Parts: sequence; structure tokens; C-alpha cells
Amino acid sequence: MAAGAPSTADSGKLRFGIVGAAAIAKKNVRGMKKLDCVEVVAVGSRSLDKAAAFIEETGLKATAMAFGSYEEVIADPRVQAVYMPLPAGLHVEWVKRACDHGKHVLLEKPIALTPEGADEIAAMCQAANVQLMDGTMFMHNPRVKEFESHLPSLGELKNFTSTFCWMGDDDFFQNDVRTQKGLDEHGCLGDIGWYCIRAMLMLFGWEKPVCVQAHAGPKFNKSGVLMHVGATIVYKDGKTGSLDCGFDHATTEAFQVAGTKGIMHCNDFCIPAREDRSTFTTSDAQFLTDLDTRMSQQTESHEVHLKLPQEAMMFKAFTELVRKVQAGEAPEQHWANISVMTQKIVCAIQLSAENDCQNVQLNL
Amino acid sequence: MAAGAPSTADSGKLRFGIVGAAAIAKKNVRGMKKLDCVEVVAVGSRSLDKAAAFIEETGLKATAMAFGSYEEVIADPRVQAVYMPLPAGLHVEWVKRACDHGKHVLLEKPIALTPEGADEIAAMCQAANVQLMDGTMFMHNPRVKEFESHLPSLGELKNFTSTFCWMGDDDFFQNDVRTQKGLDEHGCLGDIGWYCIRAMLMLFGWEKPVCVQAHAGPKFNKSGVLMHVGATIVYKDGKTGSLDCGFDHATTEAFQVAGTKGIMHCNDFCIPAREDRSTFTTSDAQFLTDLDTRMSQQTESHEVHLKLPQEAMMFKAFTELVRKVQAGEAPEQHWANISVMTQKIVCAIQLSAENDCQNVQLNL
Repeated sequence: MAAGAPSTADSGKLRFGIVGAAAIAKKNVRGMKKLDCVEVVAVGSRSLDKAAAFIEETGLKATAMAFGSYEEVIADPRVQAVYMPLPAGLHVEWVKRACDHGKHVLLEKPIALTPEGADEIAAMCQAANVQLMDGTMFMHNPRVKEFESHLPSLGELKNFTSTFCWMGDDDFFQNDVRTQKGLDEHGCLGDIGWYCIRAMLMLFGWEKPVCVQAHAGPKFNKSGVLMHVGATIVYKDGKTGSLDCGFDHATTEAFQVAGTKGIMHCNDFCIPAREDRSTFTTSDAQFLTDLDTRMSQQTESHEVHLKLPQEAMMFKAFTELVRKVQAGEAPEQHWANISVMTQKIVCAIQLSAENDCQNVQLNL
Repeated sequence: MAAGAPSTADSGKLRFGIVGAAAIAKKNVRGMKKLDCVEVVAVGSRSLDKAAAFIEETGLKATAMAFGSYEEVIADPRVQAVYMPLPAGLHVEWVKRACDHGKHVLLEKPIALTPEGADEIAAMCQAANVQLMDGTMFMHNPRVKEFESHLPSLGELKNFTSTFCWMGDDDFFQNDVRTQKGLDEHGCLGDIGWYCIRAMLMLFGWEKPVCVQAHAGPKFNKSGVLMHVGATIVYKDGKTGSLDCGFDHATTEAFQVAGTKGIMHCNDFCIPAREDRSTFTTSDAQFLTDLDTRMSQQTESHEVHLKLPQEAMMFKAFTELVRKVQAGEAPEQHWANISVMTQKIVCAIQLSAENDCQNVQLNL
């Protein structure tokens, strides 16, 4: 069953189908609409009405058809790539269908419920010769390049700390998929801990850590889903990264990476406070001056101006990779690899939190 | 053996003896000299020359005599109170002597090497009817009252996070007492982790936590002294506090306390960046606005102006408590109690770090 105004002529744009009419997709559609290189030609939901309402609300009527199933979007021959904001528990099944139809996949995070599921998703996409990327928007903010360019000034990196929390309301705690077993059962860890882990991996140059341990006192809801958890991730050389994430208190969204010569701090690393400008600071390694009395550390502010919001930059980057595959290159594997690495760390922390915060070895 | 210019007439000021000519004592002497209510009449070191040099360097010649032993300072009948910046491993012994002579004790932190030592110190001071307080200066910054007055706006408190690190140099790692077993063998945990724990206890209203667990990957030097450690402290109601402290990377000195309605952040909580002005921020619990796109959290800055540096405020507060004891009141036990509580948490985290980061129950 389909309804709406199909896009008839080839626009030269990458034609996306959206599989699942989740709230996060609205933000991404807003980003896609700012790009000349993509268009949304199909939106599928379990209910045709919901898909049509999504198209209406997001202003996609000129290009997108509504479908009452995910399958029809994936099978639509006009669709070249799918954006899949489904709960993680559905990803293996629906990525498989997308691969069967040769559709490139921009997949919401967390990407899977298990390490094996993450591996399977990456392997299916590689075998089907389709590009895989997860929906971690902040990675496409040009601020990330600025982080990377300032890292050498920090000396030898030693420690990463991060905290990403926000306060859920009654409706969230009762109804949201991130509070329920089976679909997005990694709770706060899969939803926002994911970003802390990803930032750490990026700042530590994608080096593979060796083990994780959840911090004492993880909080589960009655269904056994994490509502707050901290964890430390350990590297072979002794470097550590820690995160603290939860749905149980007011908003925090910060990381700090520290080296022998300086620190870098960003207090809105995932969702920038402003759309057109992203900031962070670096500080030197000074400590005390006269009579051990005063702090003498100097801090410098950095600012990056954005012409497009980071979610638009994500679809632009994905589209460029897809164009390369369409031109005959193999799919870029970095994005798939970091999705899998992030997911495996999420799963290991979950395992530790469920087992008295024992140390869990990683096999990345 | 004594040398220097004794203070002959009773000045009406509380007369201090300094037991140990440590670097930290120079900062405190600078603070004491800003006060009308105290004077330093004796400085004792293991070497008379060192005590004399300390008096010379700190400009105490008009009032203070140099002694070549700790014992002589404590026994000096002019001395009413001792400030004791000795390594923690010497505290039980020298606090006992001070108590034997009925001298009030302002004791550097960490106060002891063991929970039993901390209890013994507190019990000795109580039995001798002398006031005990530890040298945690930031507690006497008027900013602490401002922290406390803003706490109710944060709603139900859920989580405290803190990080206090600075980068040691070669001389520090080779020679400092905080890198050696036996004297200040809790390393970074006793030195700067202490402050994180104290801030947490204060912000959580001196409630007693139930257990601690060191974070994965604590770093010990070759002598087995902690150079970096993280830990989480758990309360009965599920509240948690975490700290991350070390001598192995550039300076960080921040805490954040988060509740259901807001967060409070202070990025120089222990040693204020400026002597005359202390700052912190509070933020509300807003998260996202339009299309889940932008952060809408509002942050407010707070500022406290200081007429005296916090170390002077500490000696002023201590002197006021001593005057009450001299007037016949019992010594105030709150300060002793929080010293012991802080020390027991330090010792429990140390135990966890030395035992594969196992959970350690507290008995406070």
C-alpha cells in the first residue's frame, strides 16, 4: 500500500527511503532538506497513516510516498539508500532485507543488541557491496577535525572523562522504547553512553581498548533496562576513558580529554548548543604559582562556524561514500568498523553492569 | 634547642606552633599573617636550620622561635595550638604528643594511614578536650555556603562527578613524600582525591555512603603508590559520587553535582583560580527544543567575593572553635567527624584499587 506524490524523474540526487517514522528521523529530514544532493522518496511505517502524517509534518509531500510497511520502502526500485531509525532489536532483520535489495544503509545507533549482531550487520553490508554508516551526527560536525588538530598539543593522552545525562519525564519512563527490554534494551548506555564511547574512540585515534568495567551502583528500571551507568574503559598502555550516562538527572553533555601537556574540554559535544557555531576549549598544563597559592593554568577558546547543521553534514558524507560505491569502489569500511567497535563496548559495559561490575575483556 | 625572637607579652592572639616546615605550611602562614586573631610563635623541623630558614622565608622573625624538633614546639608553654603539616604516617604519634600537652590541632590531610588511625586521632583529641580540624581549606571559602544555598534548586540529588589531577615533574616523582610508601602512601588519592571526596560529602549533606569501588585501571608507581585512580561511591538511596584523581596529566579541578531539576558545576573548587573571587554555575534541567535539534538548557553564573583567602578563613574558623573550648565548651565534633569519614573513604578506595577493583563496604 502506497500513497502520496511519487518523484517521477531522476533528480540526480541520492534517493532515500526512510524505514520507521521515529522522532529522531524528523531531525534528520530537516537536515536532508538542506542538501542539494539527497531527496526522500519514500517513508515507511507499520501504519500508512503514520507514514503519511510524518510526510505531512516534515514537508516531504513533493517528493515522498508513504508506505504502510518497511518492506515496501526497501523494495521500492526508486530507493537507492535507506535511513533506518528503527529500534536496535529490529536492525539485523531489516538491514538484511536492505542488503537483499542492494540498498545502502544509514543505520540509527545503537546498531545491534549483541556483538554478534553488530558483526553480522557489518558483514552483510560488505557482502552486499552497500555502504554502512551509523547515525552518530556529531562525528560529521567540522568541530571533530578541530578536536583532532589540537590533540597533539595535549602531549601524551592519558585520560578521557565524559558525562551525558538528561532527565526523563513520566511518559518517557513508561512508554519509550529505550526503557523496554527487547528493542532498545541497552537503555541510557545504548542511547547516550554510545556517544561518550564514540568520542573517546575518536580522540584516542580509534585504538582498540582491552577491557571495561561498569562503575558501582548502576541503576536499572523494573524491566532491567539501564537508567544510569558509569564505566571505565582501559587501554593496553594504561590510558583510560570513563563515561557516566543516565536518564535520571538534569542535562550534562561534556567530555574532557587530558594529556601530559594539556586538556581539551567540550561541554556540548554531541548536540551543540548552537546550530551555527560549535565551541570547545584547550588548557595548558600549568598548576600553581606563587606560594602554592594561585592557579596559573591558561585556557583558550576555539570556535567552529557551520554552514550546515551536523545532521545535514552526516547525510552529505554518507552520500559521497555511496557515490564512490556507485562508481565502482568498495564500500568504505571505517564507518562500519567504528560502529561495530562502539557496539561491542556498549555490550561489554552492559555485561559488566549486569554482573556485579566485574571486569569484562574486550575482543575487538 | 631554640633560636629566634620569642614573643614575650600575651598578644591576645591564639598562639600557634608549626610542627613541620612543609611547603604547604608556607601558604598557610601567608594566610595566618592576614589575621589579627592568630600569631605563629614557634616553628619546629627535624633540623634547626630548616626551621630558621622557614621563619626567615615566611617573614615570621618578629614572633616565631625556631626549634630543631617537633617535640619542643609542642612542649613550648606559649604554644596553644599546633598546625601540623607532617606526612600522614607521623600523625598518630604527633597528635598524641599534642594531646598530652593539651594543644589544639589543625592537622594536614590525609589525617592517617588507616581507618583505625583516624579513629584514634579523633578519640585522642576528644579525650584531651582539644579541638581537631583538618587542613581542607576550600571548606572555609564562603563559596561553600553559596553551594549549599543553591542545592535545593537542583531537586533530588542523584550524582556527583569530580576530577582533580595535575602533572608531576621528575623531581616530584622521585622525591616527593606523596610518591613513597609509609608516609603519605595514599598518593594522589590521599592528596587530591581527598578533596573530591570531601566536596561530595559536603554537597550530599554529610550523609554516610555505603560502599566504594575503584575504577578499572588504577595506576601505581614502582613503590605501589597510587599515581592515578578513579572510584565510585554509592549511597543507600542509589545516589552515586565519582572521582578521578592523578598526578599524571594536566590540571583539572572540577566537580559537578546533578539533581532532577538542575546541575551545579565548579571548575576550580579546591584552589580558586583567583584569590578575591570564587565562581561556579548552576544550570536548569532543560534539554532539547525544536525538532529535537537544539539544546535549551540555561546556565547561571555565581560569584563570591573574598576579603581573605580561604586558607586565612580556615585559621579564623579554627581559632573561633578553640576560643569556645577555652571558654569551657566541649570541642566541636563535626570537623573531626568529617575528617574521619573522608579518611575512611580514602582507605576503602585504596583497598579496592589494590584488590582488583572489588566493591568495598564502608562502615562509617
